[in-house]
Amino acid sequence: MLSDPSAALSVVFDKDGVLEQIGSGKGYVDMSTVDAATSTKISEAVKQKGGAFLEAPVSGSKKPAEDGQLVILAAGDKPLYDGMIPAFDVLGKKSFFLGEIGNGAKMKLVVNMVMGSMMNSLSEGLCLADKSGLSPQTLLDVLDLGAIANPMFKLKGPTMLQGSYSPAFPLKHQQKDMRLALALGDENAVAMPVSAAANEAFKKARSLGLGDQDFSAVYEVVKGAGGSGSGQP
Amino acid sequence: MLSDPSAALSVVFDKDGVLEQIGSGKGYVDMSTVDAATSTKISEAVKQKGGAFLEAPVSGSKKPAEDGQLVILAAGDKPLYDGMIPAFDVLGKKSFFLGEIGNGAKMKLVVNMVMGSMMNSLSEGLCLADKSGLSPQTLLDVLDLGAIANPMFKLKGPTMLQGSYSPAFPLKHQQKDMRLALALGDENAVAMPVSAAANEAFKKARSLGLGDQDFSAVYEVVKGAGGSGSGQP
Amino acid sequence: MLSDPSAALSVVFDKDGVLEQIGSGKGYVDMSTVDAATSTKISEAVKQKGGAFLEAPVSGSKKPAEDGQLVILAAGDKPLYDGMIPAFDVLGKKSFFLGEIGNGAKMKLVVNMVMGSMMNSLSEGLCLADKSGLSPQTLLDVLDLGAIANPMFKLKGPTMLQGSYSPAFPLKHQQKDMRLALALGDENAVAMPVSAAANEAFKKARSLGLGDQDFSAVYEVVKGAGGSGSGQP
Amino acid sequence: MLSDPSAALSVVFDKDGVLEQIGSGKGYVDMSTVDAATSTKISEAVKQKGGAFLEAPVSGSKKPAEDGQLVILAAGDKPLYDGMIPAFDVLGKKSFFLGEIGNGAKMKLVVNMVMGSMMNSLSEGLCLADKSGLSPQTLLDVLDLGAIANPMFKLKGPTMLQGSYSPAFPLKHQQKDMRLALALGDENAVAMPVSAAANEAFKKARSLGLGDQDFSAVYEVVKGAGGSGSGQP
Repeated sequence: MLSDPSAALSVVFDKDGVLEQIGSGKGYVDMSTVDAATSTKISEAVKQKGGAFLEAPVSGSKKPAEDGQLVILAAGDKPLYDGMIPAFDVLGKKSFFLGEIGNGAKMKLVVNMVMGSMMNSLSEGLCLADKSGLSPQTLLDVLDLGAIANPMFKLKGPTMLQGSYSPAFPLKHQQKDMRLALALGDENAVAMPVSAAANEAFKKARSLGLGDQDFSAVYEVVKGAGGSGSGQP
Repeated sequence: MLSDPSAALSVVFDKDGVLEQIGSGKGYVDMSTVDAATSTKISEAVKQKGGAFLEAPVSGSKKPAEDGQLVILAAGDKPLYDGMIPAFDVLGKKSFFLGEIGNGAKMKLVVNMVMGSMMNSLSEGLCLADKSGLSPQTLLDVLDLGAIANPMFKLKGPTMLQGSYSPAFPLKHQQKDMRLALALGDENAVAMPVSAAANEAFKKARSLGLGDQDFSAVYEVVKGAGGSGSGQP
Repeated sequence: MLSDPSAALSVVFDKDGVLEQIGSGKGYVDMSTVDAATSTKISEAVKQKGGAFLEAPVSGSKKPAEDGQLVILAAGDKPLYDGMIPAFDVLGKKSFFLGEIGNGAKMKLVVNMVMGSMMNSLSEGLCLADKSGLSPQTLLDVLDLGAIANPMFKLKGPTMLQGSYSPAFPLKHQQKDMRLALALGDENAVAMPVSAAANEAFKKARSLGLGDQDFSAVYEVVKGAGGSGSGQP
Repeated sequence: MLSDPSAALSVVFDKDGVLEQIGSGKGYVDMSTVDAATSTKISEAVKQKGGAFLEAPVSGSKKPAEDGQLVILAAGDKPLYDGMIPAFDVLGKKSFFLGEIGNGAKMKLVVNMVMGSMMNSLSEGLCLADKSGLSPQTLLDVLDLGAIANPMFKLKGPTMLQGSYSPAFPLKHQQKDMRLALALGDENAVAMPVSAAANEAFKKARSLGLGDQDFSAVYEVVKGAGGSGSGQP
């Protein structure tokens, strides 16, 4: 589970890398999150050597990983996937086979895009509650009892109210995923104004130096990071 | 639980209305969802007659109501609220006392604003999945296993994919609540760009004649209702 | 040319006000900018006394006023308008008769909405130029030679680059007009996402204490007023 | 003035291309609009052969080209620029030297981004005027007398009202420029919510098959292309 495309490519193409070992009857599974182009490059190189390739990025961050609750989004060689199911059942909560190479990366982007939008929705709700005389904590309590209750609000809501943003999922990575999701939309002529607005809020957060904080730090932008009347020119 | 301000006012002010009956030692509880101004009007009239008033709008729609799972957002007269707790415990899952008159209505607006934004996030995710070669149903399955799993996605996701929008919460009412929430933000100088973008999508849905459908019909706008190449001038 | 609805109503309805003087054969022209409801109220009161009423708000701010270059947006009594043309030709550059009461106010809102959006477009362009290594002043020069050259960019561009926002049109009034324009859109189911985004930027500016500055101070929000890394929680 | 990066590269790198001819004392001027990366590639190849390179994309479309009114945005080799000034004075209205390679392309993107936002502002204003009982043509007349009067509104406004979108600048190219401008902003952590909203409107237009029409066809999206009640699921 490497952290970026260049690492993923390096492990495959460099000296003593995967390509020197791979061959017919052998498979390579990469659980990193990389873009579809990188995944395709690796897949073709592996297949050219007679091997089988499966991308298997995971969805979920620190806590689910520790609890073995990751969701595995596999795509590529179906027989290799079938052979991996026992291992996946140990590593994670559930695995999906999504079809052709690139689909695992895409699914992850879509999930993270919805998550990033929702983090903005929560931030705006908390700020509105606070500024209009309600208790943001009470808003969290009410949300947790209703149709839109979800683990992310339950976990992040209280730390946001404390102004605590120790990074489980760094904001700069969240924003990168939103950018890639919007680009995927652009390729397919899908207009997504709410996600686009959320993406701009994350960019504003980066511009204010919050990129290495948890992505929930976008709340600081909604509240008016550095503002509160100090924005006089 | 009346449906709009004029009905709520009528019941209080008209002949044979509440004001003819109310007095010292008596309380009036209105579980309608009305704006803070209407609530204040009723509250003052009731108090002037020596009575006590409690607004107690509910959060949750058809299904939670049937299941006795509504959340009650009360505000106004605290002793009257305390006296109502046994009745509230039967009617709903939990009740909150939120302080001064108007706070019940405000809390409901904030909750519905977050819900309306999230409905747009889901719609955009489903559309992106679909147009980029993924299965929207699989997206729903993946979301339901992760940090942002919630009852609304679980309930509405499948009906949206079927294009079925039988109204549990009409879109025009959802959009009205978003408008009022944004107005509350405006009064308090709270900028909420993601909710504003969601509100515009609901307005677009109204302009396409979807106002009486369930608010999940905003998915039709995201998909390009009536579009798909038929938008040639 | 009064500054707000209560002043406009006061002048008409109070003791020694217009209603005491008005009657058949007399006309009252109000060049204030008020909302359509206030205008309608005045119009009905004046007509009830047998008089004629014309609303005639103006478009343009300090400089055009000084130069006699205002545009007059009249609506209401057509014969009264015809009688006013000579006076209007002195007061302003051109006058329009827009039909029924309220249309003058509406036209002004639409114009100011387009203007507020454009001020955001300019702000974003200047900021992008600056942060990507171009000269914002050169951007202004290039814009002034092209298809989108306009007096507002020419006049405000340089003062924005100097961080000088002496109010010709206060930001809080600009934002109020955008809010009213969006509300007019809401009434008519017109979705306007770009104007909605511009309106949120003006609200953010108000939240940072910029409401009394010129509306071009929204540039400070785009640049990251009070931010620049100082947004650390 | 080639139309895209691959053509621009081809002319330089292919057999019988520029690189076979270029050398010390010779210069190559490319007036195509290409991205900064392509421009840099060409520049390095030319400089390696001892030649000088100048990128000189132009701003302005069909009409200004015919009238010799283009604005030339040059960057790269300063002495080569100086030598080109007489030629530029004939080709266009004015030329700028913007510094290092890539700056010409960037400036053009910023200008087109502001233009694309403004086209959305105009579209929203026209639609609001129309739906709220005003004459869109009168709005154009009023705008043309005020602070935001500009040649683009004057030229495109009437054709938009006729539903006539014969392409002077195809919408798909406009949206591509907005995408690249937003990407430039992303690289530099510049949040631009109004431009982002405008970009989504252009994407929606592409999804409705309007990509080959003039970019003013985004008006169809604002009006509700294909909608008007036909959006029933």
